[in-house]
Order: sequence, then structure tokens, then C-alpha cells
Amino acid sequence: MTRNINAYISLGKDRLDKQLKAIFSKRDIPSNLHASMTYSLFAGGKRLRPILMFASYDTFAKQSNKVLKAAVALEMIHTYSLIHDDLPAMDNDDYRRGVLTNHRKFDEATAILAGDALLTYSFEIIAGDDLLSTDEKVFLLHALTKASGAEGMVAGQILDTEGEQQELTLADLEKIHELKTGELISFAITAGAYLANIDEERIQYLNQYAYYLGLIFQVQDDILDVIGDPEKLGKPVGSDLENDKSTYPNLLGLEGAKEQKQKYEQLAIRALEKADAMDSYLLDLLHYFSQRDH
Amino acid sequence: MTRNINAYISLGKDRLDKQLKAIFSKRDIPSNLHASMTYSLFAGGKRLRPILMFASYDTFAKQSNKVLKAAVALEMIHTYSLIHDDLPAMDNDDYRRGVLTNHRKFDEATAILAGDALLTYSFEIIAGDDLLSTDEKVFLLHALTKASGAEGMVAGQILDTEGEQQELTLADLEKIHELKTGELISFAITAGAYLANIDEERIQYLNQYAYYLGLIFQVQDDILDVIGDPEKLGKPVGSDLENDKSTYPNLLGLEGAKEQKQKYEQLAIRALEKADAMDSYLLDLLHYFSQRDH
Repeated sequence: MTRNINAYISLGKDRLDKQLKAIFSKRDIPSNLHASMTYSLFAGGKRLRPILMFASYDTFAKQSNKVLKAAVALEMIHTYSLIHDDLPAMDNDDYRRGVLTNHRKFDEATAILAGDALLTYSFEIIAGDDLLSTDEKVFLLHALTKASGAEGMVAGQILDTEGEQQELTLADLEKIHELKTGELISFAITAGAYLANIDEERIQYLNQYAYYLGLIFQVQDDILDVIGDPEKLGKPVGSDLENDKSTYPNLLGLEGAKEQKQKYEQLAIRALEKADAMDSYLLDLLHYFSQRDH
Repeated sequence: MTRNINAYISLGKDRLDKQLKAIFSKRDIPSNLHASMTYSLFAGGKRLRPILMFASYDTFAKQSNKVLKAAVALEMIHTYSLIHDDLPAMDNDDYRRGVLTNHRKFDEATAILAGDALLTYSFEIIAGDDLLSTDEKVFLLHALTKASGAEGMVAGQILDTEGEQQELTLADLEKIHELKTGELISFAITAGAYLANIDEERIQYLNQYAYYLGLIFQVQDDILDVIGDPEKLGKPVGSDLENDKSTYPNLLGLEGAKEQKQKYEQLAIRALEKADAMDSYLLDLLHYFSQRDH
């Protein structure tokens, strides 16, 4: 098959956005809370996680809407984590992707509650998804709560905050990224494959692929903060160095970071081979995210 | 049967606390996050919601552990809502039940994340409860997410915040309480009855009982802020009047508030009769919470 990754990403974004809009058009949510929730959901996200979930599902099954609501739920969890992460008590960011952060656009109380509501709503959407069996719902809910909670993403947030005061090793850095961003990426890939009915062994290889993909995404993020174009990124660069943050370039140097990214790429590709999934958008997405300039 | 409501409440608390401790003893949670989550879980809560859930279940079924983990999940959601509600951006409270609030004991970032983690964990516990069928899990998860999200408890929080700047009617006040505290109380009662396999019609009557019970709880809260004993309450009184807050006594006068409480009691009892559940701890709990002095 001929694959066009840009078209695939663009289609996936549209699909997701349409579903998100449909969901929010018929809910009885207080207007200010509704405005705050949808503001951040439509503030220019890359939709990385849903697109990975689509790609994982599409690699093994005929395209259907079976995966759509779970992808929406996943994007909501990612969005809630950004809203809370941007709060004054956390990263204290005024802008994200060139627009005001939620608490700057609304207020802190609303931002906290919008995050809480998005998190809760994500699980409601899966529990109420008519296209899934109860077994599938429970599997997804169990995996997603585990990935995003105190042993997953939230653990990563805490360790990241604590790590700012310390010198980290490469292993520490990988651990934080694995928890903070890797768990949701792994969920995207493995849940997509699970819904496509793939056997457990191949899911485990896909999980390895997801692990390295998450790290590739992160090392590229760090590299872009050194050599990226602020225009394309929609944010200033150089802040990591300035803040003496533990990043790949600060730990390994710029060339060392690039080499580390190549290592991750090789490992990700090896895992894809073992999962028998080389002829897929998953391979294209690997290259896409590794080469991205924003 | 002879019922001793104080003994029943005390036993229920023990049961819940033991299960909570067991759950947190074997988890791989970063230590500071673990400390923050358990701090608020064991900061002297009344365990109202779990005890109502136990009572609802025990009214219709032989006592078993089937309801235990869902009760733990419910208490976690309640606890997360208090942690976030106490934050500087929200109610800005330094103390709750005579001890420091979470963000004062730890810090704001940790309190936000502890709340997020408790909310997420509550759903994970239900999804992973071996004593429930997948149908039961999905029912509980759907009901609990709906009760605690943007159309339930979080909606109540937003409306409560917005209501502080406005003159409210009795109907407004009831609506806010229904969302902010009533939804979780309704969940406790209806989920307990559902797990005990009660038919839908009786569950609807129990839901009515739960609705009035929630309002009774709230009006008594307001009354205690006028005539309560600060020692027994573990907090100062009179703050509602001082802050010109919309409460039953401020809206109806103290006597009017007491009369309103009696009306709610009659309606709650009528619903219990229709549910054929008069010979139960649910009746005792109604009187208990109506008469409570702390």
C-alpha cells in the first residue's frame, strides 16, 4: 500500500476533532466549565496519542469507529494533565502553543476544575461507549487508569518536579519520561492493538516500540529546545539550558543526544519487526516524530 | 433485629480504613505522593458515603465484601474533591477537621497531584475489583464518573463558586447541593442497592431518599454553623453569616431552616417506605445525620 503520513495525520486529527465537538455539543455542563474544558481541548494540540492509537488499530484491523471514543478519552487525559501542569503551583506557564494557558484565559479555580472534569469525563466516555463490549471497556479502563495515575503519569509529574532540584542520570531521565509521557503513549499503542484483537506476544513487542517512541519524542523535544526555530515551535527556545533542566542535550551534549535518539530508533524498529508491523503507519510515525521540527 | 447505629458506623469505619490501608501498603507510588494521598485519606473523615453504601447494600443482601472496594473508591473521590476545594485558588483553607489541609501540610503542587491521583485511582480500584462482574464494574464506573464529573460534583463546585457572588433562591441552593454533595450520596445508596440486586423501581425510591438525605446533611451543616459547638465541630462557627454565604439559615432564618429540614425528613421517610426499606440502618442514618452535632 502507498502511505502518506501527512494525510493520515491530518485525517486522524479531523476525525478526533469531529468526535470531540459532537460529544461536547450535547452535554449539560455549566457554561463556564464547558468553555474552559473545550478551550484547552481545541488549543492546537498535535493529537499525537489519538493518532498513534488509530495507527495501531489500523495496522491490524479494518478501520472502524471502535477505537474513536477511547482515543477521545486519551486526548482528554493528556489535556487535563497539561492544564494542571501549567498552573502557577506547578510550571507556572502563561502560554502554551502560542495561546494563553487555561488558568490565564479563565482563572485558577476554573482551570483546576476543568482538569478534574476532563479526567473524570475520559473514563465516563469509555464506560459509556456503545461500540465496546463490557470486557473491552473494563480492559481499557483498567489500563488507562493505571497508566495515568499514581503509578503512571502522575508519578512522573511528581518525580519530574522533584528531579528539578537534582542531578539526574540517563536512567533517571528515562524513568521520568517513561512515566510522565511514556505510559499514555504505551496505552495508545497497546489499546489500539488490543481492540484489533492482536495476540499478547505481539502486543508486548508493540509496547516496546511505544516505549522507545516515547523516548524519541522526548529527546527530539529537548533537541528542538536547543536548535529549533521559535517561529515553528510557537515558543521560545533555550529555556532548558537556562533553567539548568535535566535534558538529553544537557546530559549528553547535542551530538550525544542525537546519537541516543538513533539508538532508540533502532530499538523501536527492531520491536516493530518482531511485532510484524513494519508495513504500517507506525513506522512512518516513528520517522515523523523523530524528524519533526515543531 | 436490634440495630445500634453507633456500633454500625464504627464497624463500617474500621472496615473501610483496613481496606484503605491494605490497598496503599502494596503500591509502587513515589513516597511524597503516597504520603500526601494517605494523609488526607486518614485525616479524620466521617466516612459518610461509604457507610451509606454499606447500609444500602446490607439492607437488601447478606453482608459481604462485594461492596467494599467501591466504597473505598467513593471515599477517595470525596477526599480528592476536598483537597482541591481547599486549595488557595478555591476556598483557601488552612485547616480541615482541626488538621492542616493537604497543600499546607505538603505544598500546592503535591496537593493538586494527590487529588488527581486519588480521583484516577478510585476508578482503577473498581476496574480491578475481582469480586465484581464486568457488567457490575461498567455500571459502577459509568454511574460514578457521571456523578463526580462535569454534570455532577464538579458542576456543583463551579456553580457554588459562581453563586458566592449572587443572591440565591431556595431552588438554586438545592440544585447546587444536589450536584456538589448529593450526586455522590445518591451513588452510594443506589450502587449499594444495585450490587444487592434490587429491582429498578425500588432503586428509584432509594434515589429519592438519597436526594433528601443529602439536603438534610447540608441544612444541618448550615444550622451547625449558626448554633454548633466549635469544640465538637473542630472548626469555628459563624463564618457563613460573616461571609454572607447563601445558606438555609441566611435564606430562611434559623427556624425556617429547621422546618425545611423536617420537610426533607418526611419526604426521605416516605421514599424509604416506598422502597420497603424502613427496617434498616438507612432509617437510623437519616435520624443520625439530621441530629448530628459535628
